[in-house]
Amino acid sequence: MKIFDEIESEVQSYARSFPRVFNRAKGELMWDEEGNQYLDFLAGAGTLNYGHNNPLFKQVLQDYIQADGITHGLDMHTRAKGEFLQALNEKILKPRNMEYVVQFTGPTGTNAVEAAMKIARNVTGQQNIVTFTNGFHGVSLGSLAATGNSHHRDAAGVSLNGTHRMPYDNYLGKNIDTTEYLDKVLSDSSSGINSPAAVIAETVQGEGGINAASIEWLRNLQAVCKKHGLLFIVDDIQAGCGRTGDFFSFEEAGIEPDIITLSKSLSGYGLPFALVLMKPELDQWKPGEHNGTFRGNNLAFVTAKAAIDHYWSDNNFSREIKRKGKYISERLDSIVSKFGEGNFTKKGRGMFQGIDCVSGELAGKITKLAFKQGLIIETSGADDQIVKLLCPLVITDQNLKKGIDIIESAIQEVCAGERDMPEERVYFEAC
Amino acid sequence: MKIFDEIESEVQSYARSFPRVFNRAKGELMWDEEGNQYLDFLAGAGTLNYGHNNPLFKQVLQDYIQADGITHGLDMHTRAKGEFLQALNEKILKPRNMEYVVQFTGPTGTNAVEAAMKIARNVTGQQNIVTFTNGFHGVSLGSLAATGNSHHRDAAGVSLNGTHRMPYDNYLGKNIDTTEYLDKVLSDSSSGINSPAAVIAETVQGEGGINAASIEWLRNLQAVCKKHGLLFIVDDIQAGCGRTGDFFSFEEAGIEPDIITLSKSLSGYGLPFALVLMKPELDQWKPGEHNGTFRGNNLAFVTAKAAIDHYWSDNNFSREIKRKGKYISERLDSIVSKFGEGNFTKKGRGMFQGIDCVSGELAGKITKLAFKQGLIIETSGADDQIVKLLCPLVITDQNLKKGIDIIESAIQEVCAGERDMPEERVYFEAC
Amino acid sequence: MKIFDEIESEVQSYARSFPRVFNRAKGELMWDEEGNQYLDFLAGAGTLNYGHNNPLFKQVLQDYIQADGITHGLDMHTRAKGEFLQALNEKILKPRNMEYVVQFTGPTGTNAVEAAMKIARNVTGQQNIVTFTNGFHGVSLGSLAATGNSHHRDAAGVSLNGTHRMPYDNYLGKNIDTTEYLDKVLSDSSSGINSPAAVIAETVQGEGGINAASIEWLRNLQAVCKKHGLLFIVDDIQAGCGRTGDFFSFEEAGIEPDIITLSKSLSGYGLPFALVLMKPELDQWKPGEHNGTFRGNNLAFVTAKAAIDHYWSDNNFSREIKRKGKYISERLDSIVSKFGEGNFTKKGRGMFQGIDCVSGELAGKITKLAFKQGLIIETSGADDQIVKLLCPLVITDQNLKKGIDIIESAIQEVCAGERDMPEERVYFEAC
Amino acid sequence: MKIFDEIESEVQSYARSFPRVFNRAKGELMWDEEGNQYLDFLAGAGTLNYGHNNPLFKQVLQDYIQADGITHGLDMHTRAKGEFLQALNEKILKPRNMEYVVQFTGPTGTNAVEAAMKIARNVTGQQNIVTFTNGFHGVSLGSLAATGNSHHRDAAGVSLNGTHRMPYDNYLGKNIDTTEYLDKVLSDSSSGINSPAAVIAETVQGEGGINAASIEWLRNLQAVCKKHGLLFIVDDIQAGCGRTGDFFSFEEAGIEPDIITLSKSLSGYGLPFALVLMKPELDQWKPGEHNGTFRGNNLAFVTAKAAIDHYWSDNNFSREIKRKGKYISERLDSIVSKFGEGNFTKKGRGMFQGIDCVSGELAGKITKLAFKQGLIIETSGADDQIVKLLCPLVITDQNLKKGIDIIESAIQEVCAGERDMPEERVYFEAC
Repeated sequence: MKIFDEIESEVQSYARSFPRVFNRAKGELMWDEEGNQYLDFLAGAGTLNYGHNNPLFKQVLQDYIQADGITHGLDMHTRAKGEFLQALNEKILKPRNMEYVVQFTGPTGTNAVEAAMKIARNVTGQQNIVTFTNGFHGVSLGSLAATGNSHHRDAAGVSLNGTHRMPYDNYLGKNIDTTEYLDKVLSDSSSGINSPAAVIAETVQGEGGINAASIEWLRNLQAVCKKHGLLFIVDDIQAGCGRTGDFFSFEEAGIEPDIITLSKSLSGYGLPFALVLMKPELDQWKPGEHNGTFRGNNLAFVTAKAAIDHYWSDNNFSREIKRKGKYISERLDSIVSKFGEGNFTKKGRGMFQGIDCVSGELAGKITKLAFKQGLIIETSGADDQIVKLLCPLVITDQNLKKGIDIIESAIQEVCAGERDMPEERVYFEAC
Repeated sequence: MKIFDEIESEVQSYARSFPRVFNRAKGELMWDEEGNQYLDFLAGAGTLNYGHNNPLFKQVLQDYIQADGITHGLDMHTRAKGEFLQALNEKILKPRNMEYVVQFTGPTGTNAVEAAMKIARNVTGQQNIVTFTNGFHGVSLGSLAATGNSHHRDAAGVSLNGTHRMPYDNYLGKNIDTTEYLDKVLSDSSSGINSPAAVIAETVQGEGGINAASIEWLRNLQAVCKKHGLLFIVDDIQAGCGRTGDFFSFEEAGIEPDIITLSKSLSGYGLPFALVLMKPELDQWKPGEHNGTFRGNNLAFVTAKAAIDHYWSDNNFSREIKRKGKYISERLDSIVSKFGEGNFTKKGRGMFQGIDCVSGELAGKITKLAFKQGLIIETSGADDQIVKLLCPLVITDQNLKKGIDIIESAIQEVCAGERDMPEERVYFEAC
Repeated sequence: MKIFDEIESEVQSYARSFPRVFNRAKGELMWDEEGNQYLDFLAGAGTLNYGHNNPLFKQVLQDYIQADGITHGLDMHTRAKGEFLQALNEKILKPRNMEYVVQFTGPTGTNAVEAAMKIARNVTGQQNIVTFTNGFHGVSLGSLAATGNSHHRDAAGVSLNGTHRMPYDNYLGKNIDTTEYLDKVLSDSSSGINSPAAVIAETVQGEGGINAASIEWLRNLQAVCKKHGLLFIVDDIQAGCGRTGDFFSFEEAGIEPDIITLSKSLSGYGLPFALVLMKPELDQWKPGEHNGTFRGNNLAFVTAKAAIDHYWSDNNFSREIKRKGKYISERLDSIVSKFGEGNFTKKGRGMFQGIDCVSGELAGKITKLAFKQGLIIETSGADDQIVKLLCPLVITDQNLKKGIDIIESAIQEVCAGERDMPEERVYFEAC
Repeated sequence: MKIFDEIESEVQSYARSFPRVFNRAKGELMWDEEGNQYLDFLAGAGTLNYGHNNPLFKQVLQDYIQADGITHGLDMHTRAKGEFLQALNEKILKPRNMEYVVQFTGPTGTNAVEAAMKIARNVTGQQNIVTFTNGFHGVSLGSLAATGNSHHRDAAGVSLNGTHRMPYDNYLGKNIDTTEYLDKVLSDSSSGINSPAAVIAETVQGEGGINAASIEWLRNLQAVCKKHGLLFIVDDIQAGCGRTGDFFSFEEAGIEPDIITLSKSLSGYGLPFALVLMKPELDQWKPGEHNGTFRGNNLAFVTAKAAIDHYWSDNNFSREIKRKGKYISERLDSIVSKFGEGNFTKKGRGMFQGIDCVSGELAGKITKLAFKQGLIIETSGADDQIVKLLCPLVITDQNLKKGIDIIESAIQEVCAGERDMPEERVYFEAC
C-alpha cells in the first residue's frame, strides 16, 4: 500500500472506500492480496455486467493475443473490428430494426459523449444542448457541461457553456410532466432558451441517484424533440448493455434516439471501449474530425464480439436479468417497508436499483458496514444518499441473495439500532 | 471490407490512407488479411515505440490474464497498479531526480490533457492557458481549445475558450525568440492577456508538422513561466516514452515541467493508458474530482511495467534510439539535398523526424507511392506537407534502411520525375 | 423622409410603426412636421413618465445651459451632480429607509445592468446569474445574456454565457410557485446550477409582455436569495420612477433588493441617464473599474433633481398614478370582457398595463388602427401579442380616456368586425 | 463634497485626481465652486474637442429646447435627426467619397462598439474578432473582450470570449511588421486562430498609451483584412472628430474601413451620442435587433449638426488643428530632449500627443504638480506612464502655450529636481 500513499494522487476515490490491494477477480467475486474474498456489488460502476474475467471471453482474448492479432490499429480496418461490427449489426441492430452508423471514439464514455455532442451541434448548426438535473455524462470539458454534479463541475476551472439545464422526470414532483415545461420554453421565442441542437439524457440516472425516468416521460421527451427539431441523444453508457433488462435501456419505451452512446460493459471484459451510434443521415463527419489514438482497441473488439455472440443471440439473458431484477425489487420493497420509518424509497429498474436513504451519512454507514462483511457496494446521488446495487448481471442467485442479505443486515444495524450483524465475514461461493 | 462501408462512420481517417483489413502484427511489421506484409512507419501515431505485440510483454500479459488478475478495477488499488507505480518510481522518476505525484486519468491522451489543464486552473485560480500555434493536444472540448488545427477546432460546434495562442519556436522566423513576446505580454497589464494559469507545449509538435523547439527556447519558456508564476505543462504524449532519445523529450533541455502528460507508448503494447505527473504541491485534487471508468486498465499497467523494466533500467535503449536517430538524420539530410531543389527541409529530432515538402499534395503523393511498396507512412502539418517518419524505436537497422530507401525512391519518382521505382513490393525481414 | 431611406440603417424599429417625421412634443402629445397631433401611449418606452419636455424642468434646464454650467464632466464632482445626489438621498432613499450607494454608469439602461452584474459577480466570486423567461435587460453582450428574447439574442453572434434561465412567476401555471423550483435547484448539489452570484428580475416584465410578478412571488424570490446567499438585483429601469404607482416598483412587496438599476424616466426629461443603487457593503469597486465617457451627463442631473423635487416630495403624485392605474384597470376589464370571446386578458399593474390578445397579428392590427386615429401605441411580448398602454403618468384624465376610447374602438373594429370607427382623427387637448 | 463621500460609489476615478466641485465651464476653461479657474487638458477624455459649452452650439440648443423640439424620440424620425443626417452626409461623407449607412446606437461609445462587433459577426457568420494589445474599446461585456487593460478586464467577473489578441504596431519592436504575423496566422490552418469575422483597431490608442500606428501599418492591416476576408473596424471614438487633424483619424492613411464607430466629440457639446457607420452591404440588421432607449438623443443631433456645419464645411479647422499639433510636437520634442535623460519619448500625432515617462509614478507626480497650477491633465497607458495632452482643439494659442509651459515646469521640477515652479496658480485668459 505504501507506494499508493507515496506517489498516487489525492484524486483517488473508490480506493478510499475499499482500502485493499486487489489481486484477482472472477465473476462477481474479487480477492485482495491477503486472500480475502469480496462480493462485488459495484461491478466497475456498471462495466462488469458479465462479471470479472468472464471465462467465455477469456479464451478468445488469449487466443487473439497469442496469434499476434492487431492490438493497436488507430482507426484502421482490422479483422477484429470487422467481426465486431458484423456481430453488432446482426445480433443487436438488425433484430431491433435499428439502422445506425457506428463511430469508434476514444475508448472512454466521456469521449463518446463529446463526439455525440459534436455531431448534434454540427449537424444542426446550433450550440445549445438541453441537459437534465442530476445527469452525469463525464468530466472532460464538453461532457462536463452536461454533467450536473457540482463536485465535478467546480473542478473545471473555466465556465461550462453550451448547455441548458432542465428538470428531469419527477424533479418538480409527480404531477408535473417536465417535458411540458421543455415544450413551453421551446415554443416561446422569448424564453431565453432558443433552438437547441439536442437533448441528452440517461434513461436511468446512475450517478445522479438511480433516478429512472418513466416510460411515458421518455416518450414525451422524444415527442417534444421531434416537434421542435431537436436531436435526441440517449447516453446509454451505464444503463445500456443489458443493465435494465434489454440491451438498450430505452427498448421498453419504444423510442428511437437519434444518437446513442455506449461504453462501460460494451467490451464485456472491462477493457476500455466506447462508441457512438447515430442515424445514418447524421453521419456528416469529415475524415478524422474527431480522432484519438485508442479508437482501435482491438482486444476490446474481440471480447465485445464474444459478449454479443454469447449473451445477445437470443432472449435468454434478457429474461434472466428481468427475473433477477424482479427479485431485487421485491427484496428492496421489503427492506424499505421494514426499516427507515417510511423515509426510504426504492429506486431504479431492472438490475439498476438502489435504496434512497435520504441522508448521505446514513447511506455511507450502511455501505461501510456491508464492506466489513465482504460486500463491495457504493452510494450515489447528490448527497451520496442512495445505496446502489450494481452487481454483475451474471451473478448467481445464491450470491445475489447473500449480497442483499448483507445490505439488509447493515440497514437493520444502522437504522433499527439492532446489533445482530455478525462480526465475521460472509463466505461467497465462486461461480 | 463491406461491413466498414456499410455501418462505420465517415469519420474514419487512417483507414482511408491504408485501405486494407489488417490481421496480424509483430515488431515493425503488419500483415493484411491477404497475407501482404507492411513495414509500419506510423507506429500507431507514436503508440508503438516498442513495436507491435512486443514478445517481451506478451508473455506477462498472457500470464496475468490466465491468472485472472484484476482487469478492470476503477481506481482501486491493485497489485498490477502498485507494481507499475514502483517501476515508474524506481526506474524513471528517481534516477532523474524527479519528484512527482501520479494521476491515473481516463486512458486517452486527451483525458490526461484535460486533467492537466484542470489542475493548472484550479491550483492557480486562473482560467487562461497559453497554447502555441500548430499545437495538438486532443479533441475533447478542453483539450481542443489548446489544439491549433482548424479541421478539428471547427468540429467543436461551440466556442473554444480559456486559452490564448502564442507563436511557437521559430514561428516568427529564426531571429525572433517568441518567449520574449510572451514575456512582454505577461509583463504588460494592458496587453489583453492577463495572468494565465499555465503554458502547455509539446517539445516536438507531431501533428503540427514535426516542429522541434530548440533546447534554448524550452529553457527560455520555463524561465518566463517561472518569472510570471505560470505553471509549465509539457504534453509528452507523442514525444515522450523514448521517441526523441530519452524517456522524457525534455531531458536534454534540463527543464522541470510542473505537469507532464504521458500516454500513447506508455503501456508498451498499444493498450489504452494515460497519466499525469505533477509536482507534489499541485496535487490539490479532491477525491474523485476528475474521474472516469477506465482509469484502472490493469492490463496496461502490466505491460507498462514490463516496458519500463526492460527498456529503461539502463541507458542502452536510449543510446540505440539516438544512434538510429542520427542515421535517420543523415539519410534525410542527403534526401533533402538531392531532391526538391532546395525547398525541402528536414525536421524534428531523435526518431521523431520528417521531411517538409512544402506542398501537401506532394507529400501525399510520396506517401501513397511508398504504400504501394508496402510502407505505411503518414503526413502531418497544417497542409499535410510533412512526410513523417515514426517507426517503432525497436526497428531493425535493416528495416529502417529499407523504409527510408522506399521513401527516397518515392521522393525521387515524385520530385525528380524519375521512374525507377519498381512496381513490385519490397520484402521486409521479420525481427 | 428621403434622408432616412438613404442612409439610416435597417435596424430602425419604432420608425417603421410610426412613419412620420416628428417635430414638437409637450406632455402626452407629439406633432409631426405637417402639424398633425398625436397622443403618446408609448412615452419613449417608459422614458417619458413626466411627459415630453415637462415645463417644470424645461426652465431649470435652460437656466443651467445659459449659465454655462458643466455639461460634460466625466465622473468629476459637479454642483449639479451633488444636488441630484442630495435630492435622491433626501426625497427618495431616506424616507424609504433605504441605505444605498449610488453608481453613475454610462447613461443607458444596459450599461447599468452590465455594472450591476459585474458587482454581483465580483463581490460573490461566482459567475452565474439567474435570469427569467421573458426578461429584458438590454442588448450589450453582458445584459443580452440576461435578456430572453431570441430576436435580440440571435444577433449576438457569439455565445451568451454566465446566466441560467428560470421560469418567471406564473410561467408553469398558477399553481406552481417557481421560486420553489429555484430553491430546489439551489439546494441540490447535483442540479447543474450551482452557486449563482445573483438573481436579476423585473417586477413587471415590460418587453416580455407586461407580466407582473405577484407580490408574494417577489417576497419568496427574496427569501430564496437570502437562504442561498444570492444577491437580488431588481432591474427597475422600466417599472421604476413611478410607473407602477410608487417610485420603486417593488415598494408594495416590501422587499429590499441588494442592487437596483434605474434609467429611462430617471432624468425626467428624456435625457440619457442611468444609475445603479447597491447596498453599501457591495461597493467594492476599484477606482474606474467600470467607466465610460458619459457617466456625467449633467443636464440630466439637473432635470432629474427637478423631477424628484417636484413629484416625489410627497405622496400626491403616487396617489394620482394609482388612481389613474385603477381607471385603466377598470377600462381594460370592461374591454376584455366585451371583446375577444374570453381570449383576452388584462395584464400588469399601476400605469403599466396591457391587453394580451394572444395573437401578435391581432394586436398589430389594433395598434395600426389606433395610429390612424392619432394614437401612438406599441405591442410587446414574445409574439408582440400584448397591446401595451404606457402613457405619460402626467396625462390628463381627458386624454387618458380618449386614448383608451381609441383602443376600445380599434379592438371593436378588429375583433368584433364592427365598422363604426370614424375615418377622421381624434383631437386631443394640450395640457 | 460631503454628499459624494456619503453615497457615491468607490468606482469614481477622475474625481480622485481632481478633487474639486466644478461648477462652470467655457471653451478650454473650467471653474470650481470657489471660483478657481482651470485649464482643461483632459477635455472630457476627448469629448470636448470643440471646448466646453461652445457658444456656437449653445444658442441652437437653447432655441431647440425653447421650441419644444422632440427631446426623446426612441428611434423615430425627427426633424433634428434628419437634419443631422443631411449635414453628416453632405459635409462629411460625400466630400470624402464615403458611402456608408448610419446606425444610431445607444449613446455611449461602448454601445457603438458592441453594435459594430455584432454586425461583423452576423454578416460573416464568424465569432472571433482580432483585437490588439493595449486597445481600449469600452467596458460592457462585448467591448470589454476587445479591451486590453486588465484593470477593466478583471472586473468582468466572467470569461471574455470571442476575440483574439494580436500585437499592435511596434509592439514587437520597430523592425517587425506585426501585420505579417497576422497574415501568417490567418494563412495557417493550424495556427489556432481561424477565420475571424473582423479586426478592430484604433489608429491612435488613447487609453493604451497614445500609441499611434504608422500609416503604413494601417494600410498593411487593411491589406491583410482584404486578403483574408476580414472586416476592418476602425474604432474612431477617441481619435476621430478632428483629434488627429482630419475628421476621421484614418484619412491620412487613405484606408476605407468597413465599419467605423464614432462618439465622444460627435455631439460637439459633450452630450451622449454614438453611432456606427458601415458599408451599405453590411447593413443586414433586422428591425430593432440592436436597440436601446436613448438612440434618439435629439439634443445631441442638434448640436452635432451645428458642429459639422461650423467646423467641417471647409478645411480651415483641419489646418488649425494640424498647425497646433505641429506646435505641440515641437514643444514635446524639446521637453523630451531636455529632461528625462533620454528615457522620455514623444508619442501620438495631431492634437493627440503625450510624453512617455516610462514610470507611472513619475508621470503621476507631473500631473499632480500641474494640477496645483490649475492644469487638468491625466495619464494613460498600462502603467499610467504617459502624460496625455488632450486639450480642446479650439484652444487659444496662448492657453495652449501656457498649458505646455506648466507641463514643462512640472517635468523640470519632478525630473531635474529643480525647484523653480512657482507656488501660485497660473491665470488663463478666457476665450
